[in-house]
Amino acid sequence: MDLFSSDFKLGILGGGQLGKMLLYNTRKFDIYTCVLDPSNEAPSKIACNEFFQGDLMDYDTVVAFGRRVNTLTIEIENVNVNALEILEKEGVQVYPSSKTLRTIQNKAKQKLFYVDHNIPTAAFSRFAYTSEIKEALNNGGLELPFVWKSAQFGYDGNGVKVVRHVEDLKGLPNVECIAERMIPFKNELAVIVARNVNGEVKTFPVVEMEFHPEANQVEYVICPARIDAAVAKKAQAVALQVSEAFNHVGLLAVEMFQTQDDNILVNEVAPRPHNSGHQTIEASYTSQFEQHLRAILNLPLGQTASKVGGIMVNLVGAEGHTGQVVYENINAIMKMDGVTPHIYGKKETRPFRKMGHVTIVNEDINAARQIAEHVKNTIKVISK
Amino acid sequence: MDLFSSDFKLGILGGGQLGKMLLYNTRKFDIYTCVLDPSNEAPSKIACNEFFQGDLMDYDTVVAFGRRVNTLTIEIENVNVNALEILEKEGVQVYPSSKTLRTIQNKAKQKLFYVDHNIPTAAFSRFAYTSEIKEALNNGGLELPFVWKSAQFGYDGNGVKVVRHVEDLKGLPNVECIAERMIPFKNELAVIVARNVNGEVKTFPVVEMEFHPEANQVEYVICPARIDAAVAKKAQAVALQVSEAFNHVGLLAVEMFQTQDDNILVNEVAPRPHNSGHQTIEASYTSQFEQHLRAILNLPLGQTASKVGGIMVNLVGAEGHTGQVVYENINAIMKMDGVTPHIYGKKETRPFRKMGHVTIVNEDINAARQIAEHVKNTIKVISK
Repeated sequence: MDLFSSDFKLGILGGGQLGKMLLYNTRKFDIYTCVLDPSNEAPSKIACNEFFQGDLMDYDTVVAFGRRVNTLTIEIENVNVNALEILEKEGVQVYPSSKTLRTIQNKAKQKLFYVDHNIPTAAFSRFAYTSEIKEALNNGGLELPFVWKSAQFGYDGNGVKVVRHVEDLKGLPNVECIAERMIPFKNELAVIVARNVNGEVKTFPVVEMEFHPEANQVEYVICPARIDAAVAKKAQAVALQVSEAFNHVGLLAVEMFQTQDDNILVNEVAPRPHNSGHQTIEASYTSQFEQHLRAILNLPLGQTASKVGGIMVNLVGAEGHTGQVVYENINAIMKMDGVTPHIYGKKETRPFRKMGHVTIVNEDINAARQIAEHVKNTIKVISK
Repeated sequence: MDLFSSDFKLGILGGGQLGKMLLYNTRKFDIYTCVLDPSNEAPSKIACNEFFQGDLMDYDTVVAFGRRVNTLTIEIENVNVNALEILEKEGVQVYPSSKTLRTIQNKAKQKLFYVDHNIPTAAFSRFAYTSEIKEALNNGGLELPFVWKSAQFGYDGNGVKVVRHVEDLKGLPNVECIAERMIPFKNELAVIVARNVNGEVKTFPVVEMEFHPEANQVEYVICPARIDAAVAKKAQAVALQVSEAFNHVGLLAVEMFQTQDDNILVNEVAPRPHNSGHQTIEASYTSQFEQHLRAILNLPLGQTASKVGGIMVNLVGAEGHTGQVVYENINAIMKMDGVTPHIYGKKETRPFRKMGHVTIVNEDINAARQIAEHVKNTIKVISK
């Protein structure tokens, strides 16, 4: 099968922003692409060869779509895994594999996987139902505070709650869940590992997620992380250990905590291009999107070093604004050196809705950090 | 008019490779795009919001297309300029302007323009018909050798011939033309100037076109050019002079000769993204495509410095090969550090057909040059 001919077809489950950015890179290699997304207005619609509207969780839809392509990948984890399993048996190359996705889709399974593979992670208890947690607290099997996480569909911060008092359990859905020990961490770090079909492996530099001191929200993704070389080395080693355990193909974004005593604990992983790698577009020799393609198409992996330091700032809707979006002062930030806005094209904003991101690159990461703060204080995502 | 809302529409005349690369950058800013191209299989077709098939030289077609958009740009010079003129009068923002395009479309006019504006260029004579050249040679008004250039449609090396003997004139079309003095140059250089609607101007670094010693064909575009700082400064100054003379908006790629005595002579210009700027995608803080958009949309211009050294190698069809294309050893070049192939997706190759380009980036431009040679000697564009 010649990749660089029209015989070959790549399928992508999900046609959102990540898929869109992945698709731009397919054009560079002239890869024929098919996209499945539930929305007829998916951002990827105008960037692929063939677009199909359909439910990513529907078995028949995913099987029918997958049969059209040679290689199938995802931009979102919540897809029908049974369908992927059948497609694999039928000879479709599915990356990440159904096995990897099945483990990752369920946070309890994911945590058990780490334990089984001696991967350091925060201590946790697993519950079939949230209602069982109270009993565990009563009989001393669990202590406050802890982080409650829904096992299923805990995508992007949903289904997570810090429980400090028994009353905090009120209102939580009565579902399979875990109670995880709270980790007072110094830094939240991430490493993206790429592995191609042949088993060639490369890691991107360790990035640091800098949090807002009050809002407890990631404000900046900083590459490289401003940490000791020894800690960076340890984080890379743990990320590689996770990658090896999954034996995954494609990208694996490994999110980790750097504890107060400089240990590394794995938080969670995403087997696809990830928010913590957006700065690679401007800062790295190979962007995470090109690297994901190289990996799943079994091409040689690209250089993962950085050309320059890079910082990513998420553009989220300002509080108190709902309605048709306006990017106030976007011209002002575009005047700053090394600043590139990425506007996702959502027409309506609402508080904290992710509307885009801005990358800041500079030879000096500390200069980039200053410009990033300037960017953050200048641009406002408001409504008309 | 809010650029970042769907009210605004950008039109592009021409849907080829340059348009395609321009379109990827429009997605970053979520700009709504319309493309007009004669081919229903134009590469841009799957990268724009609306695609229209039609003749770029047809007055009515271009006017009707232009009326759909707010700002209109080109990826190819051969478009109906009378249509652009009407559209300008009707209030469409047309960049480059009809006036600039009218001057550039005709090589005789373009040369006269340089003379009128005291822009250094090779001496030339203008002829209404090629047949008049013989007379000029006979009466001593013209000396051999010279470069014959058709005034119209001399796009990408067509319509150019070196005339060393009277016999070389045979077979040339009897059209408006110029006879230009042959310049024994040290280097062929190019500078891309960007100018936005407000008049903000920035230049990219001087690039060097390295020629094959025998084939007299550009083999490498090298950024930065390996020339003295004084020559680079002079080339930038001349490019700015040309840009100012045209008072253009958008990109203006200025091709120049560095003469044996280190003078700079303007060869020709292109008012759009250009082959001599492809390496900016990987090497520069701002790619030429993003810069063209920033300029014509009257956004602040991006930083034009390079993050790293960049070299562009054209991928052309090998001699003796016609038919379905195969990119032999593409995996081998993708293993090399800092190498990114851009495959244009043409299904059929033929000798010297431009099938793509490869960018090589490296902190050290001499290391990049070595890898570029390795790339050139490794990948072969052949037929099945």
